[in-house]
Amino acid sequence: MSQAKAFSIGVDLGGTNLRIAAVSPQGELLEKIALDTEVKEGRERVIADMVGAIRDLQGRMRGASLAGIGIGVPGVINLATGMIRQSPNLPGWNEFPVRDDIERLLKAPVILENDANAAALGEHWVGAGKEVSGLCILTLGTGIGGGIILDGKIWHGQDGMGGELGHMTIDPNGALCGCGNLGCIEAYASATAILRMAHAAINVGRSPALRRAAEEVGELTAEIIYITAQQGDRVAREIFELVGRSLGVAIGNLVNIFNLPLYVLAGGVARGWDAFEAHLMDEVQKRSVVYRATQTRIEPSKLGAEAGLLGAAYLPFQAAASGAGAAAH
Amino acid sequence: MSQAKAFSIGVDLGGTNLRIAAVSPQGELLEKIALDTEVKEGRERVIADMVGAIRDLQGRMRGASLAGIGIGVPGVINLATGMIRQSPNLPGWNEFPVRDDIERLLKAPVILENDANAAALGEHWVGAGKEVSGLCILTLGTGIGGGIILDGKIWHGQDGMGGELGHMTIDPNGALCGCGNLGCIEAYASATAILRMAHAAINVGRSPALRRAAEEVGELTAEIIYITAQQGDRVAREIFELVGRSLGVAIGNLVNIFNLPLYVLAGGVARGWDAFEAHLMDEVQKRSVVYRATQTRIEPSKLGAEAGLLGAAYLPFQAAASGAGAAAH
Repeated sequence: MSQAKAFSIGVDLGGTNLRIAAVSPQGELLEKIALDTEVKEGRERVIADMVGAIRDLQGRMRGASLAGIGIGVPGVINLATGMIRQSPNLPGWNEFPVRDDIERLLKAPVILENDANAAALGEHWVGAGKEVSGLCILTLGTGIGGGIILDGKIWHGQDGMGGELGHMTIDPNGALCGCGNLGCIEAYASATAILRMAHAAINVGRSPALRRAAEEVGELTAEIIYITAQQGDRVAREIFELVGRSLGVAIGNLVNIFNLPLYVLAGGVARGWDAFEAHLMDEVQKRSVVYRATQTRIEPSKLGAEAGLLGAAYLPFQAAASGAGAAAH
Repeated sequence: MSQAKAFSIGVDLGGTNLRIAAVSPQGELLEKIALDTEVKEGRERVIADMVGAIRDLQGRMRGASLAGIGIGVPGVINLATGMIRQSPNLPGWNEFPVRDDIERLLKAPVILENDANAAALGEHWVGAGKEVSGLCILTLGTGIGGGIILDGKIWHGQDGMGGELGHMTIDPNGALCGCGNLGCIEAYASATAILRMAHAAINVGRSPALRRAAEEVGELTAEIIYITAQQGDRVAREIFELVGRSLGVAIGNLVNIFNLPLYVLAGGVARGWDAFEAHLMDEVQKRSVVYRATQTRIEPSKLGAEAGLLGAAYLPFQAAASGAGAAAH
């Protein structure tokens, strides 16, 4: 197979969006298809949509050879079996042989990966971390995911559950997290947490600006709260200060633990970087002895929403290069 | 060189004690010399004592070949140069070529390593972790050190500062740590923290039992506070509950991050295991989604005070096995 004519398929299988791309060995996004994930229609329908889109892209790439398919999924993956162990966003997919099913339908090697791990790999391949040996990523969305790249490879841990960074306790008596714990970083720096704080402020009459914004748009979003903060509203600014300080505690801990060259913030909330960066950096500086003694970068994602898609597409190339074929290890 | 007749030298160079041992490739402690570290007499004197003891052991091991010398040091090591970057317990050693000096004097390869990293390696080689691929260790002494073994090797990070686990923030507005930060685990679970909490209780008249114990022995120690707790004193028990809960937050975070099979507690405070185990486990169970979903062991050190000595002795064997010679990587 000529490397120059190879391509791989990356899939970002989210609870809402299903995106499929053909990607070159150099990390160029060649072709892309964006669909809705028809979760309510059932697993078979989603897989049929995915397989149809991949065949469509294969047709467009005629003449080039498919190195394999990487699929990023919001959940815990059983790396040995290629099944999803748990995914709140994909009900009914638990313990279903996704990998084997798609391999059978497409006759191509398939690698399943957690979506935050895929995003970490994407940033390492062609994003913010393309010149470093390792990085941590926090994906700040509805929840907070995490991914860790050490010596160029995803750190999975013994059960594939490594990098569960969103549930780091940063305040032992702090806000209640969806996982049942008090004070997870997810309860402070996810879009859900930002909305919770804004609604609490509106409910006690603390922020007329946020109340007006909510009334105008019908439903608040983290982005609207960010815009309100940038317009100078004190309460919205305080919310993003808490986001930044909380992320600073979490990242300060990660810097002390790993001493990696780079920590990346991705996901929708990371687009509010301007509103929390100063607080985050202040906190890391105060809290991390390793940060103060080293050259450590803390940056927003460079690939944005494409990080997971590109990282998923890199999986088959990486497996081929390491001689492992399509077998996850 | 016949492997059966090889041995290595491990050195545990502490601020108070200097221990040197000859160790077999199977991890048997063959010969040991224990000295005081004459820090006040200066660096040259300490090195002369160390070199003298190593020559003594070489004499006793006549007929066997020396694979190399590993030295565990309480400080940050520059792995490339073999110099100590910073060590509060060894003033005057900063930026001094310890490794090259001892290699020159003894004509044998020398590897310098942080003492907690050496303890982690020792536990992995022949201690609590000899059947697992990786582990984290927390050494609970005057301060708290940390070491991380991933796929059988010490995780150093880009500057050799990885595994700085003692300064993980576990309570952002908590107790003041010696590093200047608020709420480091070191401010809750080191011997220093235990003494601080006991003295605070005595000063406000909360614990007659601890006051009596302090008067009897002249100076409180963490061990006496542990004994007082085991005798049923409520305040001493509360102190160890806080130790356990704080360690539970820290270890819960590490379990979520790494998903390793084993987390080890070492150092003097770990001998108080009975007084804090239940609180630690309760906290990890509540806080760590990964702990709840996996088989993860949390245990006291198996090698006790010998962990660092044995880990240091393993360094030359490991370097030889990985083909890296004595060069740190």
